[in-house]
Amino acid sequence: MRVIADLCLVPLGVGLSLSPFIAACEKILKEAGLETTLHAYGTNIEGEWDAVMGAVKRCHEAVHEMGAPRVSTTLKLGTRTDRAQTMADKVNSVAEKLS
Amino acid sequence: MRVIADLCLVPLGVGLSLSPFIAACEKILKEAGLETTLHAYGTNIEGEWDAVMGAVKRCHEAVHEMGAPRVSTTLKLGTRTDRAQTMADKVNSVAEKLS
Amino acid sequence: MRVIADLCLVPLGVGLSLSPFIAACEKILKEAGLETTLHAYGTNIEGEWDAVMGAVKRCHEAVHEMGAPRVSTTLKLGTRTDRAQTMADKVNSVAEKLS
Amino acid sequence: MRVIADLCLVPLGVGLSLSPFIAACEKILKEAGLETTLHAYGTNIEGEWDAVMGAVKRCHEAVHEMGAPRVSTTLKLGTRTDRAQTMADKVNSVAEKLS
Repeated sequence: MRVIADLCLVPLGVGLSLSPFIAACEKILKEAGLETTLHAYGTNIEGEWDAVMGAVKRCHEAVHEMGAPRVSTTLKLGTRTDRAQTMADKVNSVAEKLS
Repeated sequence: MRVIADLCLVPLGVGLSLSPFIAACEKILKEAGLETTLHAYGTNIEGEWDAVMGAVKRCHEAVHEMGAPRVSTTLKLGTRTDRAQTMADKVNSVAEKLS
Repeated sequence: MRVIADLCLVPLGVGLSLSPFIAACEKILKEAGLETTLHAYGTNIEGEWDAVMGAVKRCHEAVHEMGAPRVSTTLKLGTRTDRAQTMADKVNSVAEKLS
Repeated sequence: MRVIADLCLVPLGVGLSLSPFIAACEKILKEAGLETTLHAYGTNIEGEWDAVMGAVKRCHEAVHEMGAPRVSTTLKLGTRTDRAQTMADKVNSVAEKLS
């Protein structure tokens, strides 16, 4: 089962600069061979369900190991059985209607 | 790793009545032995990370099998390493400050 | 336009105990005359769109005034034009299918 | 109060092709003079709180007028009082740590 996900992970108890934690998560996602696109409020991820979810778990573990005692994540998960669809397909289908 | 999660699963392409799909998910969560609390915009879930995530995957699979060609889920995931905390603890810690 | 919302507000830069901030938000929502139900990962809110959104803004302002330099909120917003539906209706329609 | 938001609006009861609705929302956000970036699971928005929230309300109204009887939105809202920060700042602060 393919999934297009959106990961927004928030470490708590580490002050205001969250970017070192987010960068560590980006590396974990890349090492998992997942296609990702970083944006201003999260990261789009495309891949097989188990690969995506395994990487999300490793992100939580890594952020705790980096010193964050608490983590609150919002994860969106989109699956479909009618047809294959990539992250680029989703953006393009909207962009076409705007041009 | 324990997690307190919040699952809000939205089946698409099946009209407006979503409650049969949500009820099927509630059964899957219960059969997984997870503690759950249904509310008006999702379901709180408490358990071990892998058990919660396995059940969420089965929810997506089941909702597709029930005829929904597309599913969009918003899943919140809270983990902490400083101390154990249950769903009831979270609600009570706010409620105490209101009384 | 009526809305059923779910508010999950996370103050950053204030350590790990978030309940004083959440309790302050609960008071703001109550003072706005909104119907609310607190759960383990947020608060369900029912009311007119402008009343709900005005209260959410005051929550952000109040949490900043209490000392949180950064706030990250996840807000769900459900509206429908086909029929009236309360928070209790949503929970009951699932619960009926489980009994 | 400036806000960096992320809007993910899901129309229900209109089948599987959501892009015409999302495109209509993009136009509303642009007409409101807001800075936006479309991604595969939503749209980043930057602006003053009231301008952003007014546009989100018009998106719900427009999607209902286009024929969707039910709309479920997930909206993230980030505010900070310690310093000004743009959407590009957020992405760049992570990207720097990856290079």
